[in-house]
Amino acid sequence: MDTSSEALTQPHQILIVSEDACQKVIGRHEAFQAVESVFSSMAKGSAYNFPVVREAIGHANALYGFKSGFDREGLVLGVKAGGYWPGNVVQGRTNHQSIVALFDPDTGQLKALVSGNYLTAIRTAASSAVSIAHLARKNAKVLGMIGAGFQSTFQLHAALEQRDFEKVVAWNTHPEHLTRLADVCREHNLPFEAVSLQALGSQSDVIITITSASEPLLQAAWVKPGTHLACMGTDTKGKQEIDHRILAQATVFTDEIDQSISIGEAQHAVTARILSAEQITPIGEVINGLHQGRQSEQEITLFDGTGVGLQDLAVASAAASLAEVRGLAQRVTL
Amino acid sequence: MDTSSEALTQPHQILIVSEDACQKVIGRHEAFQAVESVFSSMAKGSAYNFPVVREAIGHANALYGFKSGFDREGLVLGVKAGGYWPGNVVQGRTNHQSIVALFDPDTGQLKALVSGNYLTAIRTAASSAVSIAHLARKNAKVLGMIGAGFQSTFQLHAALEQRDFEKVVAWNTHPEHLTRLADVCREHNLPFEAVSLQALGSQSDVIITITSASEPLLQAAWVKPGTHLACMGTDTKGKQEIDHRILAQATVFTDEIDQSISIGEAQHAVTARILSAEQITPIGEVINGLHQGRQSEQEITLFDGTGVGLQDLAVASAAASLAEVRGLAQRVTL
Repeated sequence: MDTSSEALTQPHQILIVSEDACQKVIGRHEAFQAVESVFSSMAKGSAYNFPVVREAIGHANALYGFKSGFDREGLVLGVKAGGYWPGNVVQGRTNHQSIVALFDPDTGQLKALVSGNYLTAIRTAASSAVSIAHLARKNAKVLGMIGAGFQSTFQLHAALEQRDFEKVVAWNTHPEHLTRLADVCREHNLPFEAVSLQALGSQSDVIITITSASEPLLQAAWVKPGTHLACMGTDTKGKQEIDHRILAQATVFTDEIDQSISIGEAQHAVTARILSAEQITPIGEVINGLHQGRQSEQEITLFDGTGVGLQDLAVASAAASLAEVRGLAQRVTL
Repeated sequence: MDTSSEALTQPHQILIVSEDACQKVIGRHEAFQAVESVFSSMAKGSAYNFPVVREAIGHANALYGFKSGFDREGLVLGVKAGGYWPGNVVQGRTNHQSIVALFDPDTGQLKALVSGNYLTAIRTAASSAVSIAHLARKNAKVLGMIGAGFQSTFQLHAALEQRDFEKVVAWNTHPEHLTRLADVCREHNLPFEAVSLQALGSQSDVIITITSASEPLLQAAWVKPGTHLACMGTDTKGKQEIDHRILAQATVFTDEIDQSISIGEAQHAVTARILSAEQITPIGEVINGLHQGRQSEQEITLFDGTGVGLQDLAVASAAASLAEVRGLAQRVTL
């Protein structure tokens, strides 16, 4: 407690950026730029994530917590708060619920409260898109999608913008949800096929996994040389989407190494001692030109996308600025 | 990532409870009740705090972080976000800046955004007041205040309501700030005297320490039998307000044992092995009647008030409810 002549702060104005405003101002392009830029800053050490808090609260089967960080260069400071409420969907609500609070790093005052549901979806899709842009073969033609949940359409839309894909193949535990991906392909006039996991592996040049699996779905033998994999579903200890031996064959990149080896897809390969933290490259180093990324047409590249707070802050900060400029943010006095 | 038929959530309304509204609806009585009740729930195990995040962000000398938790009984879930910006005061802003976000534990949706500056001050004062109510001698007559910063007047006001004090003595590093406490005493028609630390110890029946000291100000030999101490300033590793030997002489209570031994006043006595975690009692056990509290007129009792997220959530939740009922909350669509 400081002991000088403090007084309670005068009321100040904050911006409220609604779910609707976020959808109006942040498209895939804006999300891609924000996420690519913050991965670059993370690799330079000018932006860092704070420890993640994640709690099973013992109510409604919910997982609740915080992802936060500070981007010194962009002067973005804040937190994404919220979590996962599995019973929401039957009531017509997103299972993932979150908000982002942005603070003025010079004064600590709240600057903006930003709805986080759409932004979480679009930033996660931007993350795998950034990995495809920097790591997939230029001539990649077939995109394989493993998972057809809520997030999958965001992933698919963003991925299709990165290469001239000619076909999409997909697999999901519940095949009836694959219509969701088929609809996106129809929009893009692209052939779509529901296939087995083995067929998906043998055909795909780029594979995105976006499931909540806790066992390997894709086997190492099914993945062909030159594939780029973006593993986006594993963000908790115990989750797993692919055969961990794939990570020993692949050149592995991630958003954040600490998360990759503890709660990301790499956790299993590290536990099995077929991969070490030193063998994983932050994708920001590729963006910054310090690592050349893919080195041959035969190489398997893999991006372990664990999801970091700085991504959320980056897109929320962009949303707040754009919504303010376009008159779409509400102003309230706090 | 769940894979069922989620859709983006419909817009929903949230409450915004401003600094001004908080000051109108939460008085010392409401804060006392909220804090006493949540200490009780913590001791029963029906409310718990999540891990604290606290980061020196390397900008503006700021400390930034989060305190959060869940009260299962009261169904209060949320986070206090913010921190300490030492350069604020010269610009007319409070050094401590914070907001509280409250979430619906059934759906994860944000319910209310509550300004946290006044609430932090009033809940911290309520915490020492609860300790005085439950642990100080009934016939305590002299109150000693160590520290005369922004928080001290809140502490003094709240303490004066707990016993029939006849005199206040006080000490501060910068004696010129003691006028702040003298002014409060004048309001209450109570004699006030600026004294040395030794004189303060020898006269006081109740002592509140509320400084940012990092060395022992009050020596063990200066504290008389029967004193109750509320140590409110130490909330970080390395901070210290009193001679750690006092904790070996006293019966020690706290808001949360984990914080008390790691970042609270008890850290030094624990390091010196003159106090163990098992010897510290959560004050909630006294409130719940499981520990009798003070056992003699000669006993020295000590409350190590470290400050927990659940206190913030409890007062913020009360503020949101009262502001809503009284039409003082703003409603915005998120």
